[in-house]
Amino acid sequence: MQGTRERSIWAWGWRDKFPDDAARTGIAQLVRAMVPTLAPAMRALPPEDPAVPAPGVPMPDELAAFATQDPRSRATRSRGRAFPDLVAGFAGDYAGAPDLVATPRDGAEVARVLEVCAARGWACVPFGGGTSVVGGVDAALARGDRGAVVSLDLNKLAGICELDMTSRLARIGAGTLGPALEAELETHGLTLRHYPQSFEFSTLGGWLATRAGGHYATGPTRIDELTHALSMVTPRGLLETHRHPGSGAGPEAARLVLGSEGALGVITEAWMRVVPRPRWRATASVAFKDFTAGVTAARALAQSGLAPSNARLLDANEARMHRVRFDGTSVLLIGFESADHPLGAWLARAVELASDHGGVVVSGPTERDDHDPHAGTREGAGAAWRQAFFDAPYLQSSLLSIGVLSDTFETACTWSQFPELHARVVTAVQRALDEECGGGVVSCRFTHLYPDGPAPYYTFVGALRAGGELAQWRAIKHAASDALAAAGGTITHHHAVGRTHRPWYDRERPALFGDALRAIKRELDPRSICNPGVLVA
Amino acid sequence: MQGTRERSIWAWGWRDKFPDDAARTGIAQLVRAMVPTLAPAMRALPPEDPAVPAPGVPMPDELAAFATQDPRSRATRSRGRAFPDLVAGFAGDYAGAPDLVATPRDGAEVARVLEVCAARGWACVPFGGGTSVVGGVDAALARGDRGAVVSLDLNKLAGICELDMTSRLARIGAGTLGPALEAELETHGLTLRHYPQSFEFSTLGGWLATRAGGHYATGPTRIDELTHALSMVTPRGLLETHRHPGSGAGPEAARLVLGSEGALGVITEAWMRVVPRPRWRATASVAFKDFTAGVTAARALAQSGLAPSNARLLDANEARMHRVRFDGTSVLLIGFESADHPLGAWLARAVELASDHGGVVVSGPTERDDHDPHAGTREGAGAAWRQAFFDAPYLQSSLLSIGVLSDTFETACTWSQFPELHARVVTAVQRALDEECGGGVVSCRFTHLYPDGPAPYYTFVGALRAGGELAQWRAIKHAASDALAAAGGTITHHHAVGRTHRPWYDRERPALFGDALRAIKRELDPRSICNPGVLVA
Repeated sequence: MQGTRERSIWAWGWRDKFPDDAARTGIAQLVRAMVPTLAPAMRALPPEDPAVPAPGVPMPDELAAFATQDPRSRATRSRGRAFPDLVAGFAGDYAGAPDLVATPRDGAEVARVLEVCAARGWACVPFGGGTSVVGGVDAALARGDRGAVVSLDLNKLAGICELDMTSRLARIGAGTLGPALEAELETHGLTLRHYPQSFEFSTLGGWLATRAGGHYATGPTRIDELTHALSMVTPRGLLETHRHPGSGAGPEAARLVLGSEGALGVITEAWMRVVPRPRWRATASVAFKDFTAGVTAARALAQSGLAPSNARLLDANEARMHRVRFDGTSVLLIGFESADHPLGAWLARAVELASDHGGVVVSGPTERDDHDPHAGTREGAGAAWRQAFFDAPYLQSSLLSIGVLSDTFETACTWSQFPELHARVVTAVQRALDEECGGGVVSCRFTHLYPDGPAPYYTFVGALRAGGELAQWRAIKHAASDALAAAGGTITHHHAVGRTHRPWYDRERPALFGDALRAIKRELDPRSICNPGVLVA
Repeated sequence: MQGTRERSIWAWGWRDKFPDDAARTGIAQLVRAMVPTLAPAMRALPPEDPAVPAPGVPMPDELAAFATQDPRSRATRSRGRAFPDLVAGFAGDYAGAPDLVATPRDGAEVARVLEVCAARGWACVPFGGGTSVVGGVDAALARGDRGAVVSLDLNKLAGICELDMTSRLARIGAGTLGPALEAELETHGLTLRHYPQSFEFSTLGGWLATRAGGHYATGPTRIDELTHALSMVTPRGLLETHRHPGSGAGPEAARLVLGSEGALGVITEAWMRVVPRPRWRATASVAFKDFTAGVTAARALAQSGLAPSNARLLDANEARMHRVRFDGTSVLLIGFESADHPLGAWLARAVELASDHGGVVVSGPTERDDHDPHAGTREGAGAAWRQAFFDAPYLQSSLLSIGVLSDTFETACTWSQFPELHARVVTAVQRALDEECGGGVVSCRFTHLYPDGPAPYYTFVGALRAGGELAQWRAIKHAASDALAAAGGTITHHHAVGRTHRPWYDRERPALFGDALRAIKRELDPRSICNPGVLVA
């Protein structure tokens, strides 16, 4: 599928999905209508076939069988899809492209790439789908004073290698893209049900390396919790964790690999917990006159033990942007799903809780049974919402191309901390938007709910100043990150640390844990070739 | 409470709860009736006031304000409550007692103990409730070639320090014993609901250090999952993890501390996720003609998404020993509980699932609402079961005193692995019992269920040979552990590694993760004074 359709070299996603001039004009009009302070203006698009500097080193013989120095291959592995990446791509800047792209076909070839890099002191950047929004796959930043950068693309380590239907476990190659994974699992009636927003273009290995947040709004949502065991090739050899559903034998080895962001080695495959595809789905939406009441209802739901699969709270701006509500109310979307049982009792109690906290039901409650011939199409509204969710990153690229800055950031904090954190963040970001963009909009939704706190997700939009894009973005990003840190929120709930979040992560991380990570890095990656600049050193 | 009642110096639990001669005679008769091959014989009990060697070092001035060299204090911190510990205690052997017992009153005094130990090269053994069944607090084994051993007792760092009702979080001292913790939480209508079998005599810090398995049979059961943040004093200083409900910022720091078993430092306090005390409880028991059918039903329940709080499968021997069933059937005990909602729909589906797999309901389904004045006493059967559960360790001491060997071990494996693992383990243990004890009984229950596999828990009973107790136990323990390892099970699901499980843990642990742990140990505990012999080196 990937082979027959080409990804944009600079923008999010498929090249043929980038809106044409007429569509971009339409987006510009829509933006102007929604945010009167913005004055979108069409910009000329960058070339899809940019100039790429020659590689700084020749191809090593040991890698020739599965590596290339082709300019386009190198250009497309230059960076991820953070806002600064889009700006650089828009400017046609590929000065920092990797010197070669290796595409190993098995763990032994992964080890060989690391050997070559260790022997020559080259940096190795593991590359899955290239969707990092935190500079996690930035070849230029990885280079430092190293002689070369090798992009280690995992796309050949893809697909389901082994299936244990009884234990509901699948051994999956780290380079498997979301859609291919779900398509292969579906033939067995299974699903991983892990849908980060990058789903279409990100890989299992990337999800594991960055501790991605997935589909479930409550309960087991982080990829960590769906992981049974995993394998990571380090410069010192293979680290393969013991297979068990649960163990109390020492600190958990898998938890050291999860979130290591390529800095300790290359995740090559994992045994993942899969589930039968859900049959029953029960949903409702509840509106709240003010966001604070919605927050209280969300908390009650998170602490109820009902464990809805979906529980998203949108503030009034988010509700408007998502075309859910236009009357200034906040909305709590509630969903349950099961392959085992109908969910009427679950949803009824969830709706009752939301109503007890001042909510008004504006949609549902409805339950659908996929085995019911009168239930209509199996997907329906769910599929529409999912498509809109996956299309959001496309919009960011389109907006950039009409001179509009848009980006998101996320955190998690306790329920007690949230009111102050929210006030600080909104104030800081609005002030930065006013200063940098002459105004703008900041909105908030909860993407995940825990009994002890929410994961608030912020979106901001403002006007870009030609030539000042990066400075504008940096000022706003710093203001947001400083506000998060000051209010006690984590610097990231599911976007990872990469290189962008390092200054705040380094302060958030206990100093002695930083020392421990450095000690591990020295042990597993003594030449410090694995994704330099990420996590440690 | 602890102050007015004395713990036995050698046996499990309260000294006044140890059965008198008449009661022990009764136990002997009962054992003979249940296992005809056993011939229990009363043994003389050891002195409760044994000889303790003089300390090998004088009291350092820096610790004098909060440490003692009193013989009894030192004797009671000599070891935990593993079978070899009971044998040593029964023999009155306190040759390895620690040289002094420090009872720091705050984190600064904990740090001072570590400073003194580091400066002098002494071993420091953190001591919570002293209930380790794996040699985790063994002063003699910690000593090695070190000049002295300091037992660092955490009992002064106890109680709830801070409460966040909104976020349902409590900051709790690591030395807090289970009953004191629950009593204090109850005054706020809260509970941690973490009930390891050692609950009465173990501490929060011990649960955290050993990744204890708790009350819930499915869902969040391990103490890890109830932990919001924690503090550990290391020889290099304080490691305090960031407070958040969930974060994707790097590998999770708390997960390095959890399971570190005192080898990296001393856990002093933690923010724990607490919940309102349950109001509704729904229960049922389902019998199966054969264990295999029960296993299949347990698997269906674990994979249903219903997340019962209790789901224990007892094989026929366990059912008999627990006085639940005497007809050779296996039994699945199912329980749900909630502070938020009645559980009829949940239990009905669970019972239906069990019935679909050949089960016959033998008790319930019943649901109790604590707010219903006609519901009877709030505790009832639950309290009786809980008491029997907590009393089981007492029985082990009593059996030893009448010449009967009894012990337990546990593991976790995938559902696919279980049939072969079970066959191997039962065969190996039965053969060892036959060889070492001239026969005996081995039984199995599932204490915890995961979607990808069960946590089988084995109990074995045989006749002791006077003077050969340790050799007998070792032979059986080795046979069991080798069988677990050969079949792919983890060496421990919730008893921890300590010193007993080290040989198997060292093979189970990925070699490179072992290297990583050693690197961390060198970083945080450069003089290697923290619980030497545990986890690494």
